Amino acid sequence: MESLREVRLRGGRLVVAWADGAETEHEARWMRDHCACDACLHPETRQRLVAAHALAGPALEPVEVARAAGDGDAGVEVRFADGHRARLPAARLRPAPIAPRARVPWLAADVDDAPSARWDALLHDDAALAAWLEAIARRGFAFVDGVPVAPAATRALLERVGPLRCTLFGDLWDFTADLAHGDTAYTTLAIGPHTDGTYFTDPPGLQAFHCLAFDGAGGESLLVDGLALDARLREELPEGRRLLAETPVPWRYLEPGVHLRAVAPVLDLSPGGTLRSLRVNDGDRAPFEPPSGWYAAWSRLLALAEDAAFVFRFRLRPGRVLLFDNHRVLHGRAAFEGHRRLCGAYLDRDVFESRLRVLGAAH
Amino acid sequence: MESLREVRLRGGRLVVAWADGAETEHEARWMRDHCACDACLHPETRQRLVAAHALAGPALEPVEVARAAGDGDAGVEVRFADGHRARLPAARLRPAPIAPRARVPWLAADVDDAPSARWDALLHDDAALAAWLEAIARRGFAFVDGVPVAPAATRALLERVGPLRCTLFGDLWDFTADLAHGDTAYTTLAIGPHTDGTYFTDPPGLQAFHCLAFDGAGGESLLVDGLALDARLREELPEGRRLLAETPVPWRYLEPGVHLRAVAPVLDLSPGGTLRSLRVNDGDRAPFEPPSGWYAAWSRLLALAEDAAFVFRFRLRPGRVLLFDNHRVLHGRAAFEGHRRLCGAYLDRDVFESRLRVLGAAH
Repeated sequence: MESLREVRLRGGRLVVAWADGAETEHEARWMRDHCACDACLHPETRQRLVAAHALAGPALEPVEVARAAGDGDAGVEVRFADGHRARLPAARLRPAPIAPRARVPWLAADVDDAPSARWDALLHDDAALAAWLEAIARRGFAFVDGVPVAPAATRALLERVGPLRCTLFGDLWDFTADLAHGDTAYTTLAIGPHTDGTYFTDPPGLQAFHCLAFDGAGGESLLVDGLALDARLREELPEGRRLLAETPVPWRYLEPGVHLRAVAPVLDLSPGGTLRSLRVNDGDRAPFEPPSGWYAAWSRLLALAEDAAFVFRFRLRPGRVLLFDNHRVLHGRAAFEGHRRLCGAYLDRDVFESRLRVLGAAH
Repeated sequence: MESLREVRLRGGRLVVAWADGAETEHEARWMRDHCACDACLHPETRQRLVAAHALAGPALEPVEVARAAGDGDAGVEVRFADGHRARLPAARLRPAPIAPRARVPWLAADVDDAPSARWDALLHDDAALAAWLEAIARRGFAFVDGVPVAPAATRALLERVGPLRCTLFGDLWDFTADLAHGDTAYTTLAIGPHTDGTYFTDPPGLQAFHCLAFDGAGGESLLVDGLALDARLREELPEGRRLLAETPVPWRYLEPGVHLRAVAPVLDLSPGGTLRSLRVNDGDRAPFEPPSGWYAAWSRLLALAEDAAFVFRFRLRPGRVLLFDNHRVLHGRAAFEGHRRLCGAYLDRDVFESRLRVLGAAH
């Protein structure tokens, strides 16, 4: 954090000169609104306790300023004509910019299925948990080994991140695709690269899989980095990428008693043009009238997602949990024969980010 | 639905003349993408089964078109050079526009606390449930009477809409603010009009309250229609309204182990300029640098929300459940003394809309 060099009042405003030569100015209402004293800001919940937006008259007249006693972040204390002494820590006067979390796009050749962590460590060691979640933030997925082969152990792991999302599929689902009883056509077919829950306003942020049993052939899993796909599109088909980012697409899910629907573009770009999240599921796309050129861009995106250069293939196996970023990484699986039991769950992106902040990788 | 008058092919496109004189044109890829035959569209899940975006050559050459046999929605059948017969129902060729759901803004004088429904009817009668949910869609809230005074009966009612949202507060919370044991300052103070969960990417869509016990004084509840507030702002302070709609605001929630954060404007307006949702909670607003004029607009919005003309006051009581639209309606309560036990829950907006669609108010 930068150090304060000098503080003064000028025309009813606070002027702060910083050690690096920068100068910042702060108006009276902003100071009252950002006062960090215990009467204005709840010391535990950090909730604002005073309606500073409605103050008037002497409450908005600063009369004296001094550097506050205390450590480097003590900042300044400003006395107002109504008698209030506003405390403004340096971090409020000049907040550190929130750097976007570093994400590393990958191709199939860049990755392996080396686990980042072991279950028992994640359950008891916050530093191990932080490192594992940071790996997911960086490359979009990570494995855990040594997981007891049971839904309860999977749940215990995921609840270390936060509460599971409850959807129409329940919170922790546990699904047996058993040829003896199941519907072959539905449960054992190949599923191409896609993201889940395109039809939600806020699609599931993270998804976990744990294969609890497999006795058969086929069924390899796959992951594709949407960040790498987007980088390629940007290079190869910028106009198509623009269409995918600007064209609202209806997505839907239908079953008896349920009709979910969301309208959102395939690519969600930040104002700066970086990919925030993507929705990819051709099956769940509802009827609509795409603009000219949209089909070509969509088709190219789906073709890239099937291109071996992008597709990381691996095998889910009992004792190993996969957690991945469903806003960024597409998943799928090859067709299989035999018996397979899979459990899994969703976590909100909000919950994941909260846990990362609390564990010290503040963002 | 409009009737087809004539269908023909022209330059590789389908041309449909409708009974009302309108004409629509459809390109080959769109037709393959929207084919409703059982091979292209799963008859139950309505998921697309064919990658029409990737078709080429004869698959995109229509050779013959005829009106399909069947009722008024049978539409047309188009034969392609690859032999496929694409079935295009009239509703796909010319979908009925989705009218926005009618919402009626209200002032305090316009409303009363008359219950819209009784618990036993909602539990067993889909038509009663539909009417109740439509009332919520229209005015943003509704009551139910005759609810057994227990969390389980409250849950049973809410699960008729869909799965409860699970947040850090659990799914159905049940909270006793008991002076004998609680923290008076925290649990019995007045709470001004606000919306919940401003710090979530997708704030809770619906919120339910059921007061299970009250022995004391004060504690009246209040609701304020954000749609009415927005209409007033639009009239009175259009530039301020624009600032509230365009300025991203950081919102946050902190407690040990949790640090939720979302950045979003106060007003979320549709491209057409109507209010989709709003976030109002001065306590949960995190430090930021608002643009000039923002404080004045925010202050005016909060002042209007406290204006008696907008504030509908009523009393929660055992046996009566309130469900309201937290994306539209602000809530709060007066200070109280005594013993009060409240249970409640959140439902996603997605879940609420899904239920309304399924019950026949298709949107």
